[in-house]
Amino acid sequence: MPTHTTNMRMKFPILALTLEVIMIILFGIFAVYDDGKGHGHDPQPGNSSHPEKPKDPMSLYPMFQDVHVMIFIGFGFLMTFLKRYGFSSVGVNLLLAALGLQWGLLTQGFWHLTDGKIKIDIFKIINADFSTATVLISFGAVLGKTSPVQLLIMAVLEIAIFSINEHLVANIFKANDVGASMIIHAFGAYFGLAVARVLYRPALKNGHENDGSVYHSDMFAMIGTVFLWMFWPSFNSAIADPGYTQLMAVVNTYLSLAACVLSAYAISSLVEHKGKLDMVHIQNATLAGGVAVGTCADMEIGPFGAMLIGLVAGIISTLGFKYLTPILASKLGIQDTCGVHNLHGMPGILGGLAGIIAVALGKKDGHATMQAAALASSLGFALIGGAVTGLIMKLPFWAQPPDQNCFDDSIYWEVPEEEEHEESLTAEHYKNKAEV
Amino acid sequence: MPTHTTNMRMKFPILALTLEVIMIILFGIFAVYDDGKGHGHDPQPGNSSHPEKPKDPMSLYPMFQDVHVMIFIGFGFLMTFLKRYGFSSVGVNLLLAALGLQWGLLTQGFWHLTDGKIKIDIFKIINADFSTATVLISFGAVLGKTSPVQLLIMAVLEIAIFSINEHLVANIFKANDVGASMIIHAFGAYFGLAVARVLYRPALKNGHENDGSVYHSDMFAMIGTVFLWMFWPSFNSAIADPGYTQLMAVVNTYLSLAACVLSAYAISSLVEHKGKLDMVHIQNATLAGGVAVGTCADMEIGPFGAMLIGLVAGIISTLGFKYLTPILASKLGIQDTCGVHNLHGMPGILGGLAGIIAVALGKKDGHATMQAAALASSLGFALIGGAVTGLIMKLPFWAQPPDQNCFDDSIYWEVPEEEEHEESLTAEHYKNKAEV
Amino acid sequence: MPTHTTNMRMKFPILALTLEVIMIILFGIFAVYDDGKGHGHDPQPGNSSHPEKPKDPMSLYPMFQDVHVMIFIGFGFLMTFLKRYGFSSVGVNLLLAALGLQWGLLTQGFWHLTDGKIKIDIFKIINADFSTATVLISFGAVLGKTSPVQLLIMAVLEIAIFSINEHLVANIFKANDVGASMIIHAFGAYFGLAVARVLYRPALKNGHENDGSVYHSDMFAMIGTVFLWMFWPSFNSAIADPGYTQLMAVVNTYLSLAACVLSAYAISSLVEHKGKLDMVHIQNATLAGGVAVGTCADMEIGPFGAMLIGLVAGIISTLGFKYLTPILASKLGIQDTCGVHNLHGMPGILGGLAGIIAVALGKKDGHATMQAAALASSLGFALIGGAVTGLIMKLPFWAQPPDQNCFDDSIYWEVPEEEEHEESLTAEHYKNKAEV
Repeated sequence: MPTHTTNMRMKFPILALTLEVIMIILFGIFAVYDDGKGHGHDPQPGNSSHPEKPKDPMSLYPMFQDVHVMIFIGFGFLMTFLKRYGFSSVGVNLLLAALGLQWGLLTQGFWHLTDGKIKIDIFKIINADFSTATVLISFGAVLGKTSPVQLLIMAVLEIAIFSINEHLVANIFKANDVGASMIIHAFGAYFGLAVARVLYRPALKNGHENDGSVYHSDMFAMIGTVFLWMFWPSFNSAIADPGYTQLMAVVNTYLSLAACVLSAYAISSLVEHKGKLDMVHIQNATLAGGVAVGTCADMEIGPFGAMLIGLVAGIISTLGFKYLTPILASKLGIQDTCGVHNLHGMPGILGGLAGIIAVALGKKDGHATMQAAALASSLGFALIGGAVTGLIMKLPFWAQPPDQNCFDDSIYWEVPEEEEHEESLTAEHYKNKAEV
Repeated sequence: MPTHTTNMRMKFPILALTLEVIMIILFGIFAVYDDGKGHGHDPQPGNSSHPEKPKDPMSLYPMFQDVHVMIFIGFGFLMTFLKRYGFSSVGVNLLLAALGLQWGLLTQGFWHLTDGKIKIDIFKIINADFSTATVLISFGAVLGKTSPVQLLIMAVLEIAIFSINEHLVANIFKANDVGASMIIHAFGAYFGLAVARVLYRPALKNGHENDGSVYHSDMFAMIGTVFLWMFWPSFNSAIADPGYTQLMAVVNTYLSLAACVLSAYAISSLVEHKGKLDMVHIQNATLAGGVAVGTCADMEIGPFGAMLIGLVAGIISTLGFKYLTPILASKLGIQDTCGVHNLHGMPGILGGLAGIIAVALGKKDGHATMQAAALASSLGFALIGGAVTGLIMKLPFWAQPPDQNCFDDSIYWEVPEEEEHEESLTAEHYKNKAEV
Repeated sequence: MPTHTTNMRMKFPILALTLEVIMIILFGIFAVYDDGKGHGHDPQPGNSSHPEKPKDPMSLYPMFQDVHVMIFIGFGFLMTFLKRYGFSSVGVNLLLAALGLQWGLLTQGFWHLTDGKIKIDIFKIINADFSTATVLISFGAVLGKTSPVQLLIMAVLEIAIFSINEHLVANIFKANDVGASMIIHAFGAYFGLAVARVLYRPALKNGHENDGSVYHSDMFAMIGTVFLWMFWPSFNSAIADPGYTQLMAVVNTYLSLAACVLSAYAISSLVEHKGKLDMVHIQNATLAGGVAVGTCADMEIGPFGAMLIGLVAGIISTLGFKYLTPILASKLGIQDTCGVHNLHGMPGILGGLAGIIAVALGKKDGHATMQAAALASSLGFALIGGAVTGLIMKLPFWAQPPDQNCFDDSIYWEVPEEEEHEESLTAEHYKNKAEV
């Protein structure tokens, strides 16, 4: 095992500390606390002037904490389904999000300086958390095949590119995307898929022993799934106009997710061996309804419309896992570890299309063409940005894992020796036997 | 293994999709967003006109999210204690709750139409989540011995019956039950026990190899226990009158639960072999204080009264697990997998009785006789409704599991082969050995 | 194995029930619900009269629930990293916190009686939860080497002593410590270390087979880590002055924690074998930034200052785990199971020192000398109180575990026999084989 190539000593500490020092310096120069006169960044034209902005600076705090849980517990544990990659999934998720929220606060803030300063409020830290979601989605596409060093680089580049596209979508096109189906989900998915394509590993074409789950790792992943599922209404409504618009965003997401669960379970059983349910589908496709209703969440699509979107999202997402993912890997050389194309990619596009239709039908003020431009822009920045980022990540000195060590924590983490556990169990076993 | 009888292909997908399509059609006809003129459904006479209804439509949202976590993480993981049934516990919990919240929103809403419409607000989705709790409690009684097909049928019937009883209790009897000790906990428990009785399996009389926990499954269950325990004050106060009444409901529940923990631990150690603690008691009996204080939560019982209720609840619940559950199984043919009789049944009745006494003592406006009628009604609807539902579930074509395959996920789920795990561990083992 | 000495029957039930009965009696005498005229206890001079106290008695409830999750899920699961001690970690954590919050509500309330009564509001139950944190931190220092009986005794004594020191710091010195770096973290850590010193076990000097983690136990511990990390902004801002001061406390903690993650990961990789990451560092040192910024959280230190504190905290905490903990054990006879000295001790002192400097620099009203007195007082009460408590806990009849049974749940818990699991896996294995 050529461990010298995977040894992160020096490379990782130096990169991580350097990035953090740069962050601290930039915050020292640009960041101040909101003093109550700030407006907060806002991807929607509808309330860019925040006419209804609540007086209490803490009013969005519970929403922020729900989003925070989705980012750190939701995304982190969702990826722990791999049998030997749990440390990296939840651990590197924490690392990337911790860096990303600082960087996102800056890159988004630079577009909205007040007297040359970024005034930090709850609204801005919610958007900072949002920006990290793009990286965590892309992380899912390359999970198990990249080093923490490569991923830090991806985080820095992806969030910078995200912020440009978001500014374009929100402030130039003035398009609606309150739940970020386009600017976060579709963007993050296709960015990650582009990276995965560039980092294609032919040797893994026939799978890898550790590229799979065990019983307990699937249980840990369900912690992530359920927390994401529960708090998605907060994700889609956090930055909506306060009051009844926000309530509508909550209700639409709540109902879309509920409908999505039924269709995901139904299709999983329909396509699986002996009508059984497949954990991969349940862990992921049940969330597609939250992604797909994102753009329309604050539009007058009605409970009926929201549920229809959720129903369709659950179906296409499950079918994607079953039939599309294998084809992408074998035909296009896109090895999508977590199937982000099925959870974030296609449902994200579905959300964008639904938004175009909804706006065209007058469910919310806006221009259908601008919605279409926003979707195209998000996909374009994602594919090009991801390809370029992938090429940089492919440089041979980022401590990337050799093929045979993919999907294995022990290459970047001190992993406890399970044997001791086995032994203690045996001991326990005999002790119990003896007591009988 | 007669897998043809357990094969869910067609049966499950068709039922799940049909139910979801019906839901979407009914929502299309009846559901609209609350526009601010709605009153919200309310099981309490005290504030059925919502004199204090807050202006901000989102004010109850944090409470809703706490309840949401109890439903999906709390109930879901609490049932993962079984060694080979974790996928079904958390997965089917998600399925039933996702269907139930849609159906509950409708069945509760039909009693309170505004201009022929159900106006959805946070108050209504909290009650929709509540209605699913009855099904999840009953699920615990039949856990491991029913198919997802049977459980979908149970969910539809139980929530419909629940809504009738709830309407009777809240609007006809005008009884107090803010924390739903009677209409959710006692109802759900006895409904499930009636179903379990009808589905009695003599072959399981002497237990089943998989009807037990392993170390890690008990740890997963504690995730459910602790989240239920923490957020129970929200469950009992979510629909209380805003302000100091709601604060009182929080404080009463907080203190009742704390007292309950001490008594549950004490009794567990007292009755167990060598004074040891039993995880089954800790996972369940520590929550009985939340159930038992439910009806009285918004009454002036005082911290002293709340703690006394919690203390007693912890004692009877633990004793129930130790001595009553085995008798119910052997003498009455009621095989209560999760012991819901001890966590929801007896403590629910205790809560109802405490409510009768508290109202009689003038701790809150109301009529003790109506409180008694509410308890009787809840038990009556539960036992009769559960028996009828059980008979329908007993029809031989719902893909129910044969006795030998009970408590085993692999009959309805694609379960990863643990052997691979074992192998990788061995490999790991030798690699580590080699490095030494 | 001298099980007779570890048999808790009678000792534990009698102590637990007696304590609970005493609590109920004291609550009956002293506790009433807040009627809106209460002020709530407050460790800060700045708002001891609560000029801005919000009208809505529930306004702090979401903050309370975040803190609640940190206490019961955060601390509970953080300690589940030990391979055979998960039941005790999360279970005894629940027991101690449930007793502690009742006792803390009383001991803190006695200093602030209104008409001879303790008026319970959300502010007071937040502080009650806070008081339990000291015990849970100390629990980490003696984890695996104490009996539940000993720990109940520790909880009663530590919270009483904590309340005296807190009163001194907040109301006599009128020092600032909004996030409790000094009065909770440093106090809890040094109290626990003093207890650990008194309970020194020479036989464990060369380690213990069960004093380590396995893969899944490290995953469970990450649940605790991430929930603590996410909700720390609530911990540090819950009792801050409402409005922009509270926002500042949130922002400072959010940024300090983010910076801390990067430095903790960097140093972990720097000092570990082959540049790998160590789970012990990730689980703990990533949180040091929350501890260290506690005292300064509501001061005008600026985002820059907060991040600098987090950066330094992550570094010293990781270095402490790597180099200091072994020395404390070998040279000073302080066996710190969870390394609380690195997570709460040193970062707590760092927080106290930062507070002295910040106040001296006029970042908040106050006297640097009083800040210094607060730190000295917290350390003094902790060391002396811990030593005395340790001596009482050392009395030979508290069912303490013999050396060879330390770090093993099976001595105080009914532990399921893993062998059955192994068997069922083998069965599963062959069944799958057969199906092929």
